[in-house]
Amino acid sequence: MRRAVYPGSFDPVTNGHLDVIERAARQYDEVLVAIAHNEAKTGLFTFEERVALLREAVQQHPNVQVTQFQGLLVDYARSVQAQVILRGLRAVSDFEYEFQMALMNRKLDSDVETMFLMPKEEYTYLSSRLVKEIARLGGDIGAFVPDCIARALRAKFAATDSAPSRKP
Amino acid sequence: MRRAVYPGSFDPVTNGHLDVIERAARQYDEVLVAIAHNEAKTGLFTFEERVALLREAVQQHPNVQVTQFQGLLVDYARSVQAQVILRGLRAVSDFEYEFQMALMNRKLDSDVETMFLMPKEEYTYLSSRLVKEIARLGGDIGAFVPDCIARALRAKFAATDSAPSRKP
Amino acid sequence: MRRAVYPGSFDPVTNGHLDVIERAARQYDEVLVAIAHNEAKTGLFTFEERVALLREAVQQHPNVQVTQFQGLLVDYARSVQAQVILRGLRAVSDFEYEFQMALMNRKLDSDVETMFLMPKEEYTYLSSRLVKEIARLGGDIGAFVPDCIARALRAKFAATDSAPSRKP
Amino acid sequence: MRRAVYPGSFDPVTNGHLDVIERAARQYDEVLVAIAHNEAKTGLFTFEERVALLREAVQQHPNVQVTQFQGLLVDYARSVQAQVILRGLRAVSDFEYEFQMALMNRKLDSDVETMFLMPKEEYTYLSSRLVKEIARLGGDIGAFVPDCIARALRAKFAATDSAPSRKP
Amino acid sequence: MRRAVYPGSFDPVTNGHLDVIERAARQYDEVLVAIAHNEAKTGLFTFEERVALLREAVQQHPNVQVTQFQGLLVDYARSVQAQVILRGLRAVSDFEYEFQMALMNRKLDSDVETMFLMPKEEYTYLSSRLVKEIARLGGDIGAFVPDCIARALRAKFAATDSAPSRKP
Amino acid sequence: MRRAVYPGSFDPVTNGHLDVIERAARQYDEVLVAIAHNEAKTGLFTFEERVALLREAVQQHPNVQVTQFQGLLVDYARSVQAQVILRGLRAVSDFEYEFQMALMNRKLDSDVETMFLMPKEEYTYLSSRLVKEIARLGGDIGAFVPDCIARALRAKFAATDSAPSRKP
Repeated sequence: MRRAVYPGSFDPVTNGHLDVIERAARQYDEVLVAIAHNEAKTGLFTFEERVALLREAVQQHPNVQVTQFQGLLVDYARSVQAQVILRGLRAVSDFEYEFQMALMNRKLDSDVETMFLMPKEEYTYLSSRLVKEIARLGGDIGAFVPDCIARALRAKFAATDSAPSRKP
Repeated sequence: MRRAVYPGSFDPVTNGHLDVIERAARQYDEVLVAIAHNEAKTGLFTFEERVALLREAVQQHPNVQVTQFQGLLVDYARSVQAQVILRGLRAVSDFEYEFQMALMNRKLDSDVETMFLMPKEEYTYLSSRLVKEIARLGGDIGAFVPDCIARALRAKFAATDSAPSRKP
Repeated sequence: MRRAVYPGSFDPVTNGHLDVIERAARQYDEVLVAIAHNEAKTGLFTFEERVALLREAVQQHPNVQVTQFQGLLVDYARSVQAQVILRGLRAVSDFEYEFQMALMNRKLDSDVETMFLMPKEEYTYLSSRLVKEIARLGGDIGAFVPDCIARALRAKFAATDSAPSRKP
Repeated sequence: MRRAVYPGSFDPVTNGHLDVIERAARQYDEVLVAIAHNEAKTGLFTFEERVALLREAVQQHPNVQVTQFQGLLVDYARSVQAQVILRGLRAVSDFEYEFQMALMNRKLDSDVETMFLMPKEEYTYLSSRLVKEIARLGGDIGAFVPDCIARALRAKFAATDSAPSRKP
Repeated sequence: MRRAVYPGSFDPVTNGHLDVIERAARQYDEVLVAIAHNEAKTGLFTFEERVALLREAVQQHPNVQVTQFQGLLVDYARSVQAQVILRGLRAVSDFEYEFQMALMNRKLDSDVETMFLMPKEEYTYLSSRLVKEIARLGGDIGAFVPDCIARALRAKFAATDSAPSRKP
Repeated sequence: MRRAVYPGSFDPVTNGHLDVIERAARQYDEVLVAIAHNEAKTGLFTFEERVALLREAVQQHPNVQVTQFQGLLVDYARSVQAQVILRGLRAVSDFEYEFQMALMNRKLDSDVETMFLMPKEEYTYLSSRLVKEIARLGGDIGAFVPDCIARALRAKFAATDSAPSRKP
C-alpha cells in the first residue's frame, strides 16, 4: 500500500493543484490531500469551506481523500503511514522554498521522502492568490479553477462587494 | 497610433521607473503611466499624492500621460485602446513574477501583448520600498529619485518623525 | 515606420520562434528575422538552408522578411534603421544571458532598444537543440516545428543515418 | 585592525548564523554582530532578549561582540570604523536581495565593502522563520539552534500555548 | 509492480547519484539505472567501464538493476514498462534543464511521469565533471565517490599522466 | 599578514576583474592574482601573454602580484599561505557555479575560506568571452578593458583577419 500526502492550504484549489492530484492518483495507491489547519492564518475561505470545496473537486478520484492536519507535516505523514510527501514544482522561486522545506522535513523525519512533480505547463502561471485577485476584480476565472470553485469565488466576492454598500 | 500602458503603484516613482518611461516614450506614440487604484492597499503616499508627484516627474515628456485604473489591467488596456503593456525587468525574481502576470493577462485577453524592457543597469538595485526605507532612516536619496520626490519623501518623514514627540 | 530586428541562428526555426515572430508582426510595421552568419560555427543546416526554411515558415506574414547579418548586431540594426531588437524570454537562464546581451548592446549603441516578449507557455520547453536531438533519435517532432522543418529534419537525419552504412 | 560588521535581526540566532560568525572570527580582528533595532517590527523575542541570547551563543569567541544599531547600516559601520559588512549567502533568492542591498549600501557609502561567505551546506535550509515555525508546532529544534536558544524557544511557546487556556 | 527508470551518463557515478538510487530503491519495487548510450559523446570511462563500475557500486541493492538505452528515454521507459522517470534536483540550474526535459518527455509520451527527489544537501556541490577535474589534478576524491570509483579514477589518471612521459 | 588569492583564466582581464582587484587591494595586505595554467585549454592569448597583460594592467597596485598555478586551487592557496580565495559575483548563474566551487574547495581544505564581493553594477554584463566576441566583430571595446588589453585585442584580431588572406 503506497500512500502519499499532498499538503497545502488550498484557498482555494486551482486547476494546477488538480493536475498534480490527478497525476498523483495514477502513481500512488492512496493520495491524501491534506489541508493545513493554521489558526493564525485566515484565508478567503474558511477551513470548513476549503474542505468541502476540495471534496467536491476531487470526487471523481476514488483513491483520493481530503484530510486535514495540525502541527508538523512529517508527524502527520507518519501518523497516516504515508511514505511520501508530494509537491508540485512550477518555477525557480517554488524550487528554493520547496528545497528548504524538503530538507528541513528530512531532518525532522528521514523516513518520509518528498517527491516533486510538475503540473501541466499551462498551469505554470496559476496560483490561488492570483485567482482570488482576478475574481475580486471581476475577471473571468473559468479557465483556472473547477466550476464549483468558480461559483464559490463569485458568491464570496458578490457578498463582499455588497457589504460596503450596506455600511452607509 | 501605438499606445502603451505602463502600470504600477509608483509609491513613489523612482529614477528606475523614469528610465523605463523615457525609453517607452521614444518607442511608442503615447505612453499611459497607469497607477493602480487599490483601496485595500494603502501606501506611504495617498493615491492623489502619487498622481501629482508622477505628473510633475514626467512633465517634460509630451507623449506621456499619468492615468489611473481600477479592476483588471487588461480591461483598462482595452478600454484605452492600448496594444501593449510595458514592464521593466531588473532581476531574476522580477522575471518570475512578471512572467506569471504576463501569461495570466494573456489568458484574460490575448489581444494585449506584454513587452519588457530593461532599465539602466545602475537602477537594477532600486525599488520604491528601498527608497522609502532609506528616507525613513534619514539617508540621502538624491541619487535615486527626482527632486520633487526627494522633497516629498523628506516632508513625509519629517511629519512622521515629529508626530510621536507630540503624543506625550 | 517602426522596424524591429529579431536575430538568431534558427538552426532550425521552431514553433517557439514562430510564435514570437507572429506576435512581433502584429506589433511592428516590419519585422526583420535576421540570421547570424557565423563562419566559425557550423550548424546542422547550412546557412543557405536556414534562410530557405525560415522563408518558407514565415511566408504568410507579409511584413516579415528573412535577412542575414555579419558583425555586430547593433551595427546591423542601425544599417537597416531598426529602432528595436526583439528577443523571446522563456526561462530564468534565458533571462541572464539576454540581460547581459541587451546591456552590452546598449553600451555599443544606445539608440537601439532591446524589447522582450514571451512565447506561449507551451513553447517554454522548446529549443532548436532539443528538437534536433529528438529528431536524431527518431522521435516525432511534428508538434514542435512547422511541417517544412519537420520534413527537412527527417531528410537530414535519414541522410546522416545511412551515411555510416555506406562507409565500409 | 580589521573590523567587520555582521548585521541581522537574529530573532533568534541559528546554527547557520553561528557558522558565519565563526568563519568571520577567523578572518577579522574583530567581528561586531549588530542587531538591527527596528521599532516598527516586533519579533518573537524582544530586542533585549535577542541581545542576551546572542551574547550567550557567541561567548566562546573573544573577538566577537554583540552590538546594536538604529538607522542606516552604512552609517553604523562608519561610526565603528568597520571596513566590511559581512553577509551569508545560502540560496539564489538570498543572492538577489543581498545584491540589491550591497549595491545600495555602496551608493550610500563607497568606503564600506560588503563581503559574502557561505555557511556550511547543512545549514542551507535553515532560517529563523522556519525554526520558529517548527518550535511553535512542537517539533525538535535541537539540531538547528544552540542549546540556550532551544530552551528560550521552548519557554516562549510554552508560555504562548498556555496563555489561551487561561483566557476563559 | 512499480518500476522507475533513473537515467544518466554516470561518467562516473558519484555519491550524489548513489544517494538518489538508495532513496529510489526504498520507494519503488524495481529501479533501473539506465546509462545513456551515446556514440557521439565519449566520456572519461568507456560505456562498458561505466556499466561495470555502476554494477559494483549498487550491488547491495537487490531491487536495483543497471541497464542501458539508446534512442529516446520515453521509448525505453515504455519498453521496460516503467511508469516513472526519476531525476535528482540539486540547484536552480538543474531545475530549468530538468523542467525542460520533463515537459518535452511528457509531450512525447504522456503516460510516463517524471518524478524528482533531492539528494542529501552535502551532495549538492557534487558532479561527475567536478570529481573528474579534481582527480585529474591529483586531489583526494575519497569523500565524493565510492571506493571502486576512486580506484578507477586514480588508475585512469595515472595512465594518462604517464603517457606524455613515454612520448619522447 | 592577510593574503588573498584571486584566481581566474583572465583571457583577457576586463574592467570587471580590475574592479574586483582594486576592491581586494584595499581589503587585504597582499592580493595574488593567480592565472590557472591549464594545458588542455588554449585561450585567445597564450599563458605568457596573459601574465604580461595582467601585470601591465595592475602595475599601479603595489600590493597586487600576478602569479600562476597548476593543480588544485586550494593546494596553491595553502602553498602561498593565503587564508582567502576571492571571487566576484555578478549574476545568479555565477552564484550557483561559485557556490559549487566554494563548497568543493572547503571539502578539500577547510582552512581556506572563499569570500565573494560584487563588482560595480556597470560591469555586471562584462565577460572575457563577450569582449573577445565584440573585438572579433570589430566593435569598440574601449569601455570594457584597460588600454593595454584593447591594443592587444586589436592586434590579435588584426593578425587573425589577415591570416586567411595570406594562406592562398
